[in-house]
Amino acid sequence: MQKGKASVVFDHPLLIRGAASVAGKKEGQGPLGHLFDVVEQDDMLGQDNWEAAESCLQKRAAALAIQKAGLKAGDIRYLFAGDLLGQLIATSFGLMELEIPLFGLYGACSTMGEAMSLAAMAVDGGYGDRCLAMVSSHFATAEKQFRFPLGYGNQRASSTTWTATGSGAVVIEGEGVPEKAGEQATPPLARISGITTGKVVDFGLKDSSNMGAAMAPAAFHTIWQHFQDLERDEKDYDKIITGDLGTVGQTILLDLLAKEGYDLSQVHMDCGIELYDSERQDTHAGGSGCGCSAIVLCAYILPRLQDGTWKRVLFVPTGALHSTVSYNEGQSVPGIAHGVVLEHL
Amino acid sequence: MQKGKASVVFDHPLLIRGAASVAGKKEGQGPLGHLFDVVEQDDMLGQDNWEAAESCLQKRAAALAIQKAGLKAGDIRYLFAGDLLGQLIATSFGLMELEIPLFGLYGACSTMGEAMSLAAMAVDGGYGDRCLAMVSSHFATAEKQFRFPLGYGNQRASSTTWTATGSGAVVIEGEGVPEKAGEQATPPLARISGITTGKVVDFGLKDSSNMGAAMAPAAFHTIWQHFQDLERDEKDYDKIITGDLGTVGQTILLDLLAKEGYDLSQVHMDCGIELYDSERQDTHAGGSGCGCSAIVLCAYILPRLQDGTWKRVLFVPTGALHSTVSYNEGQSVPGIAHGVVLEHL
Repeated sequence: MQKGKASVVFDHPLLIRGAASVAGKKEGQGPLGHLFDVVEQDDMLGQDNWEAAESCLQKRAAALAIQKAGLKAGDIRYLFAGDLLGQLIATSFGLMELEIPLFGLYGACSTMGEAMSLAAMAVDGGYGDRCLAMVSSHFATAEKQFRFPLGYGNQRASSTTWTATGSGAVVIEGEGVPEKAGEQATPPLARISGITTGKVVDFGLKDSSNMGAAMAPAAFHTIWQHFQDLERDEKDYDKIITGDLGTVGQTILLDLLAKEGYDLSQVHMDCGIELYDSERQDTHAGGSGCGCSAIVLCAYILPRLQDGTWKRVLFVPTGALHSTVSYNEGQSVPGIAHGVVLEHL
Repeated sequence: MQKGKASVVFDHPLLIRGAASVAGKKEGQGPLGHLFDVVEQDDMLGQDNWEAAESCLQKRAAALAIQKAGLKAGDIRYLFAGDLLGQLIATSFGLMELEIPLFGLYGACSTMGEAMSLAAMAVDGGYGDRCLAMVSSHFATAEKQFRFPLGYGNQRASSTTWTATGSGAVVIEGEGVPEKAGEQATPPLARISGITTGKVVDFGLKDSSNMGAAMAPAAFHTIWQHFQDLERDEKDYDKIITGDLGTVGQTILLDLLAKEGYDLSQVHMDCGIELYDSERQDTHAGGSGCGCSAIVLCAYILPRLQDGTWKRVLFVPTGALHSTVSYNEGQSVPGIAHGVVLEHL
């Protein structure tokens, strides 16, 4: 079952039984806006502060994913969840009411890949029939956490990405797990057939306004490692989809892979590039945040796997592992990327 | 293999093949000081800032645990690691050089329990022969993250705990995994026979100077759930060891359990209470931080399991899931606790 240095191919692929995407207003106005399950028109979600609003995104995405899978919260064995905020407060306050055992995760914007990988291992290993993998991000909490107060109105570099407001959640189920009585479940969306787990990769970039460049080497390494471990290449995939490299990071990724003999120009897609119309929406290099790849996965990628448009996809959320403290101390911005192989059923 | 709502009993217990504790100077001056593998006399560890010092603690603990297990870094399949800092910067920068696939975790001071649980599941599930579970905390990085600048010299409430400077790491190995050629491995220290995973528990406490009280309900819930799931009680354990409740939290935990008919007064131990001589060292209610339970585990608990002083222990690191942002926004301090059953071989 272990394959190569960092990959696993599951003997019995896991099913993605339900998925939900809850997006913010700006995301709803983008090219994928019509695909999201919910587009919140109030980015405060009726809460008193941005962090509580982000928690609310998680709450709604979790409830909807569980409902769409025809399940109750009590049917979920473990939550694998995270967000971008210090001490994961969006997650801690967002998922409390579910009363489900929680593994809190931090992989920056790669966290959806991390959560899906661990949830798949937990289900495949027999530790639970069904697990929920979910993440969130919110433009306003992320700006407050990583950059400037919104009211300051700072000018953004062309290489910056726009942190997506949104939360995506998937219910991962073992094959052959008996159906739960009660509500009618939607058919499974896709299966998870394998994972490749990323390591921390640091090319020494120090510009936190250019996270695409900082994360591209990590995405490169995970994709390259995946090809080595499974003896595959880009021709084995209909799409290889990174999380939030944006236009700057995409160029670097394609260059790095080309040097190793892989031509991803026809199969590469980046969730951050898809999420917004950057010209019209002033998002510069693209979208980012763990919510970015998660809502694009749930609203756009999984349905295309379900209807057979794509047969096999490598989903590779990418994260930049810095904080304001490390940045202010002159440290570089290392990256990490976690790959998940998704297949048409 | 699944037992009850939140527990797993492994069909084939996992071995703790190596463990390492790297402690700070103050921890070295406490009652357990003579037991740590390394006591750093310079809390800066020769680095330029506290965060780099904390990364250094992780680097040294990881290297030592791997060495004591008779292994090389390349023999470790996955790292499960975390720390208390926003965006886990101690971990990201500390473990980069190992070049091992990383799952970054955040469970506040419960993270060692979370890391050991996931590492045990990963090994038991067949996804890797050996994984490393590790965490760190550092008094100075935590004060900066959560409280006041050290130079401000604020007065600390009697209910506060002292964040431990230290990092603990354990190598978890599957039973029957072939020995690696080369260096002589020390014999395994103990085995992991089961886990109970905590959920977020919030009794509504808002005092971040009294984290013992905030975490006690989570510790209570995990221990109570463990007893229900496995049909056990305190008489099945030589010790039930929480992470960092301190003296205030201990009283609350024992009261809560007594109300449910469990008398833990004879078997309960708290790593935070053991780590310092609070009168002499001015640490008030005890030690805290994810490093606290981790170094007490590696230096004190595991050796007692190895020599048979204790036959079976429930190790329950406890975490307070707040941040300065959530605190300043008037939120409560929810808790979480993850249980790991450790047994004499």
